[in-house]
Amino acid sequence: MKPVVQVAPRLAHRMAQMQPSAVREILKVAERPDVLSFAGGLPAPELFPVEAIAAAHAEVLAKDGAFALQYSTTEGYGPLREWISGHMRRQGIAASVNQILITSGSQQGIDLVARILLDPGDVVLVENPTYLAALQVFAAYEAKLVPVASDDDGMQMEGLEALIVAHRPKLIYLVSNFQNPKGTSLSLPRRQQLAALADRYGVVILEDDPYGDLIFRGERLPAVATLGSSNVLRISTFSKTLAPGLRIGWLSGDEALVRKVTIVKQAADLHTATLSQRATATLLRDFDLDGHLAKLRSVYGHRCDTMLAALRANMPAGTTWVEPGGGMFVWMQLPNGLDAEALFAAALAKHVAFVPGSAFFVDAVRRDFLRLNFSNRPPELIIEGMRRLGEVVHAAVASPPPPVVRRAETVPPFAQ
Amino acid sequence: MKPVVQVAPRLAHRMAQMQPSAVREILKVAERPDVLSFAGGLPAPELFPVEAIAAAHAEVLAKDGAFALQYSTTEGYGPLREWISGHMRRQGIAASVNQILITSGSQQGIDLVARILLDPGDVVLVENPTYLAALQVFAAYEAKLVPVASDDDGMQMEGLEALIVAHRPKLIYLVSNFQNPKGTSLSLPRRQQLAALADRYGVVILEDDPYGDLIFRGERLPAVATLGSSNVLRISTFSKTLAPGLRIGWLSGDEALVRKVTIVKQAADLHTATLSQRATATLLRDFDLDGHLAKLRSVYGHRCDTMLAALRANMPAGTTWVEPGGGMFVWMQLPNGLDAEALFAAALAKHVAFVPGSAFFVDAVRRDFLRLNFSNRPPELIIEGMRRLGEVVHAAVASPPPPVVRRAETVPPFAQ
Repeated sequence: MKPVVQVAPRLAHRMAQMQPSAVREILKVAERPDVLSFAGGLPAPELFPVEAIAAAHAEVLAKDGAFALQYSTTEGYGPLREWISGHMRRQGIAASVNQILITSGSQQGIDLVARILLDPGDVVLVENPTYLAALQVFAAYEAKLVPVASDDDGMQMEGLEALIVAHRPKLIYLVSNFQNPKGTSLSLPRRQQLAALADRYGVVILEDDPYGDLIFRGERLPAVATLGSSNVLRISTFSKTLAPGLRIGWLSGDEALVRKVTIVKQAADLHTATLSQRATATLLRDFDLDGHLAKLRSVYGHRCDTMLAALRANMPAGTTWVEPGGGMFVWMQLPNGLDAEALFAAALAKHVAFVPGSAFFVDAVRRDFLRLNFSNRPPELIIEGMRRLGEVVHAAVASPPPPVVRRAETVPPFAQ
Repeated sequence: MKPVVQVAPRLAHRMAQMQPSAVREILKVAERPDVLSFAGGLPAPELFPVEAIAAAHAEVLAKDGAFALQYSTTEGYGPLREWISGHMRRQGIAASVNQILITSGSQQGIDLVARILLDPGDVVLVENPTYLAALQVFAAYEAKLVPVASDDDGMQMEGLEALIVAHRPKLIYLVSNFQNPKGTSLSLPRRQQLAALADRYGVVILEDDPYGDLIFRGERLPAVATLGSSNVLRISTFSKTLAPGLRIGWLSGDEALVRKVTIVKQAADLHTATLSQRATATLLRDFDLDGHLAKLRSVYGHRCDTMLAALRANMPAGTTWVEPGGGMFVWMQLPNGLDAEALFAAALAKHVAFVPGSAFFVDAVRRDFLRLNFSNRPPELIIEGMRRLGEVVHAAVASPPPPVVRRAETVPPFAQ
């Protein structure tokens, strides 16, 4: 008989790219109660329609408890999909009920689309910088990420066709409105060009639109999904308009593709929580969503303006930022090439926090950007926070901190 | 300018194995209201603790609405993980809070464990037959499935070491108690052998135990996870004890492995619904779970006995079945090698339905088995259903139906 020695398990190749993250540790610290944090991507909890959500859960459980607590279909609850279909129609996006799949948050939509498309080594084109938990999904499928430059009008189209021809990507991922982290939106001409390229080259566009409803300035642009290509898949969510804790998002697009995604969702988690889906559908039946969105836009617009004014008042010359027309984030560039990661410790000493921008980049990492969230704090705390941050940046300009040694990075705990 | 021709997207290799399923169509038909179906794997909805669940949601939203509706950590809600840790301790399984990850149903646990371990071509050893949505997960990771024979004591250990040496599997998957579809449990000596093999060869055991609490006969066996190997990961769920529509399951095991699974869960869906987790934790604080489980065991035991008696009364000689000590299923073998798929149409004509057993097999598919669920129907309907099924089987013995042409199979809509 051989002696029993415990042998450790062998992990999948993908795990080599999914190490614990320096940013994750940074964000844990940022969540300390003594820290005024603008790091997380959290909506304003005081605006959650708590009473309406409570009433909807109570009604569903009282009237349909046995159904609301049972297993249900992978596609999602019919009346919720019907409501979403109508909601999208009002936004100019045609999608029948059969073209809509309910997902466990829109994050799951990214994962499932990657699952139907990506083999190891396949290329995904992404804006650079982009939503970092999407980068983590593509890493999990061992995709090769090829960055596409972006500017204030979103992903740049010059050169995109050449990248498509050179790399034959399966997928182009982008956040079309009020992008995370930059706050920029893809311009209308670029949306049209992108849809045409999707058709011409058989590449799927994943249009991630969690923030489109949070528009407080300018005119809403038509979704890429409306511009004629059936190769555009679109994901959205109630996380920013109702509440993220429900974990209800959806995918829409070509029925055959949505059907493929449905098949892989069944293996991933069978279906999204029946009770959450039914309660959301019940809430939406009576709820004044338009009134609620108007309030969100007003509050977030005011918080954004407050932050922009406070940045103007407090930041040293040479600091620049994007002025977003919606969403939840301001993307700021430090003066003199200052390193945002190196600044983090000094900020923490002043009890203020942000996300260093480097984590959002695919490669050619820029160290002099940072992301600030304005949705999660009232104006007076935004003013106080930007005052503290201004002091930190002024001090750094006077005496730049030593650079931080880089470690492997993946995704922080509040990746959204 | 080239003419714009729409090119179709290229899908991942894994999708070739994930086609729409003949069984899926069969089960859709079985869910017709005029059909007395024993096909789905559904718990009894009349036993869901609807009022307690409603009260818990109301309390959480009234007291902590802003937290219950916000984003939360991937690991899961601390007090829920603490309750689970205590619950497991009472069952003899030591798992600290840091060794527990909340999942979106235990189905997600299978998916995430596959994700940390499996590269395309890696071998997974599985009982044959086994839970078919697990087979679908392993197909999604392009694993090579190697079946291990099983008998009334579960997965056979003779030959298992040779299979491990020959195939170097990353993972062995099994349902340890009242297996789906067979209703059998792994014997204690085999559990000990399995844990020892996991250590010796560095292979992860995924012990899936959704049914262990639904024991109505015999003595509860210690979990494989208690038998000394840190290479055993265990998943369980509230789907069978409280309600599946909440989608709350959990994974437990070695802290370093659970940490890896947590990292991949973050990319998959950020976290499980905050509200469902907090409501479940609040419910469990006051709820008489032991009393509830005693009731479930009594009702399910009675339904099982009713089904077994009805089978004895109605089935022709040569029909055999497993008599389970818990769980939700009876696994039946037809006489004379009759084909269960071919029988399905005749059963439907009599307004009764089951799942043909072939879908649960990896290879060397047996056509003469079928799975019957007893948890979802009251005794009088079980008696009527087995009467109808008895007529169908008797008629088929007298005049066997022609075999069904086989198509590719994956997973039905109610795969559990």
